[in-house]
Parts: sequence; structure tokens; C-alpha cells
Amino acid sequence: MSRTASTAPRLYVPDPLAPGAEVPLAAPQAHYLRDVMRMAPGGAVRLFNGRDGAWLAEISALGKGKGAVRCAERIAPQRPEPDVWLLFAPLKSARQDMLVEKAVELGVSVLQPVLTERTQTRRVNPERLAAQVVEAAEQCERLTLPEVRPLADLFDLLAAWPAGRTLFHGDETGGGTPALAAFSAPPGAGGDALLVGPEGGFSPRELDVLRAASFSLGVGFGPRILRAETAALAALSLWQATRGDGGLTPGC
Amino acid sequence: MSRTASTAPRLYVPDPLAPGAEVPLAAPQAHYLRDVMRMAPGGAVRLFNGRDGAWLAEISALGKGKGAVRCAERIAPQRPEPDVWLLFAPLKSARQDMLVEKAVELGVSVLQPVLTERTQTRRVNPERLAAQVVEAAEQCERLTLPEVRPLADLFDLLAAWPAGRTLFHGDETGGGTPALAAFSAPPGAGGDALLVGPEGGFSPRELDVLRAASFSLGVGFGPRILRAETAALAALSLWQATRGDGGLTPGC
Repeated sequence: MSRTASTAPRLYVPDPLAPGAEVPLAAPQAHYLRDVMRMAPGGAVRLFNGRDGAWLAEISALGKGKGAVRCAERIAPQRPEPDVWLLFAPLKSARQDMLVEKAVELGVSVLQPVLTERTQTRRVNPERLAAQVVEAAEQCERLTLPEVRPLADLFDLLAAWPAGRTLFHGDETGGGTPALAAFSAPPGAGGDALLVGPEGGFSPRELDVLRAASFSLGVGFGPRILRAETAALAALSLWQATRGDGGLTPGC
Repeated sequence: MSRTASTAPRLYVPDPLAPGAEVPLAAPQAHYLRDVMRMAPGGAVRLFNGRDGAWLAEISALGKGKGAVRCAERIAPQRPEPDVWLLFAPLKSARQDMLVEKAVELGVSVLQPVLTERTQTRRVNPERLAAQVVEAAEQCERLTLPEVRPLADLFDLLAAWPAGRTLFHGDETGGGTPALAAFSAPPGAGGDALLVGPEGGFSPRELDVLRAASFSLGVGFGPRILRAETAALAALSLWQATRGDGGLTPGC
């Protein structure tokens, strides 16, 4: 194998990973290894599937749009990951692409697009979202993919909110608790979720419902008005540093 | 005036702002008010110049690519802003655009592009950077523009480092202090700077120099490998929450 374990391309595969297991490559992965990375059978790759840790593997077959790799050895165990959902109103293409990529890098566990009363962009492309999530996870050394949920109405989500999960919603009206203080409180047992509104903010009715909900707390991010995607990334960064895995260091 | 003070377009102007002062608009601003916002003389705008607070003003003249506004009243005082520099290696176009926009929103005071040994993109366009900074500041309710400095070599910057200013550099090798812990230490008197490396990271020689510098401290952002722009935004978000103005709320 010509590359070391730390520089070999990293790929997500859905299949089980075990010593000697051969797993097929998706067409874009085969294209990437063959035509972009100029690799050939015998070359080293790294694999993860969200369950079995990180594996070193060898390309066993590689053709035009198809290929397979064979697992060699596990190079890192699966580790538990923080439980933090991101609820976000769909954004225009480039900003949403950025939001999704960065949220994956910052360790989000669930991406939940939400319809709010002022949401401008009222549809998402689930296949595109799923592909972006895989690419970002491969890039950032995560061992999991976040779950991408279907677009849902905010009020429906709040009406069926899971018991024990805390919801922190961005509040730019000045009524929120500073995010650092809010996140420094002891976490509950049911995990957390972060909710950021659309460009126009939450409607008064939405803010009333959010403020009345026992599981929700408004948080603020300082005196500047942040765009929706900036607020989401600031929230995730602060959450990981305070309640997530910000104290850990890069591993495999 | 047809718009309230909180929804009137917000413009940066370099001129002094005082009661009755008339200030010219730049050509893109006149175009924006006339052709995008469909406004006319008499319409309300908000102004800031980085020194005199926020002002409500009225369009006094508006033509094709030119115009002027007259200051009515000050609606917010100038407030001091956090002193935090961002040193970043130039990135490819879309990622750098995003980095600059978000850094302005997150309250950076100085944008300093740096050449490092592994910097891929070795030039920046100062006019483009300056225009992006103005647009982002207008959007996010800042009362200042960050200063944009010319591209400089990292070792030159370190050799002439200002006394008393603390430099936090991103360290993905696992040797850094978790950022939240690093930022929670009492700040020095000379302000702070945040340094993120290029996509390929710092060279071993750069890391040696940074680690040896008495003014510099390596910080980490958890177990995932963040892209350069993500690391910059995570660092700024955490910095504002801990050492900056994250406890304040949106004002005017």
C-alpha cells in the first residue's frame, strides 16, 4: 500500500466492516479514486460505516464507475458522538450548502429542516442533502453520518417534541439568555436540539409558542445580527465546546 | 419617511455624521436604493461610519449612480467593540467569501491574510475584500468596519508581534488546549488574535515557532478535523462568547 493510514482517502460505506470483508464502492467513489486520485487496485483507503469504527482497506477492483475494497484492519474503534440536533429553515442554495457542510464538521447528529412562517425557501432536495452529508463526513474524520430528516412544520415538531430533550432556540429580539450561559447549565438526560429561524426571524406567534414551551430556552449570540447559517454554526461551535466533545482531540 | 428606523436600509459612509450633515452616496449604494429598493428622495436610511454611532437619515438626492443623504438624528451611540484579530491563510474564492462575511458578522476587528508555507492561494484582492467587509457590516448591524490588512508572511508577523497581544493558533495535531479552556483564562491587556492555518495545516517549522513564542497558545476544537474557514468561525464564536461581547444583545 502506497499511502499511510492517515493520508489514505476516507470513504463512507453502508456495509458491515470486518477483517477480510469486501465491500462495493458507489459509482462516485470509484470515479473519485480512479479518475481524481489516480489510484489502482492495491491502493489504500480508509472506511467508516457509522457502527464499526475506522478501517484500513485495500482497493480490490476498480473500473469505470465501479469497484470494491477489502477491509484489512480496524484502525480506530467506534466512539460515541454527541447527541445534538440542528433544526433549521431551508436556505437558498449556496448558504444551505455551507450550513450543511459546516454542521456535519461541527458534529451535528440530526439535521432537521423546518418550515416556519417566514421560511422563504420551502423545499429541500433530500438526495442532495444526503450526498453533501456523506462528503462532509468523509472530509472531517467523523465516524458517523448525521441523520437527515424530512422537512417538517415547526409547530408539528413542537407538538410532538420528545420528552427530556432540551431545545435551544436562537432569539435575536434581545430576550434570550447568552448562549454560553445557557449551554453551561447541566445538560438533561434526553440530549439537546438547536433551532435557528429563517432570514426574517421567527414570527411573534412562533416566539410565543417557543417561549411557552417548557422544554425550550431562547439563546442570544451577542449584539450583532447573525445570518441564519452563521447563528447555526455559532450555536453548534459553542454547544460542542460546552456540552459536547470540544475537549477531545483529533484521533485516527 | 416611509420606513421605521429598524427596517430602513443600513449604509456605511466614510464621512462625518452630525445633525443636518449631507453625505454623498457611493455609486453602488445609489444603485441599490434606487433600482433594488425602489426608493426615492425623502426615503429613510440608516448610516454608520465607525465613529459617530448610528444615524437615521433621509435621501436628499437620488439619480443614476449617484445620490446623497441628510442626517436626521442619532439613533444609537458608538459603542466600543471587542479587539480580536483574525489571521487566516487565503482560501479559494467561495470559501474565502464565506469566511470574510462570517468573520465580520462575528465581530472581528482586524482581518489579516497571512502567507504560510502550505498556503495554496497566494494572493488576495484587496478591493474585493474591502467591498465584502462593507456589505457584511451593513447587513449585521455593526457600527464599525474591521480593518483589512495587506497580505503578510506569517514569520514576518510573528517577528514583529505587538507586545501584550495574545495569539491563539489552531492546532489540530492534538497538542492544543481545548479552545473553551484557553479562552476562559483572564485576558491580557493587549487584545487577542486568532490564527488558523491553511487547508494543509501548519508546517512542522511553523508549529515549532508558534509553540516557542511566549505570546502564542495552541487551541483545539474537538475530535473532528475542521476546514480552515470552519475553524476560524468556531474560534471567533467561542472567543466572542467567552472574551468578547457575547453577553450583549442586539440594539438599534
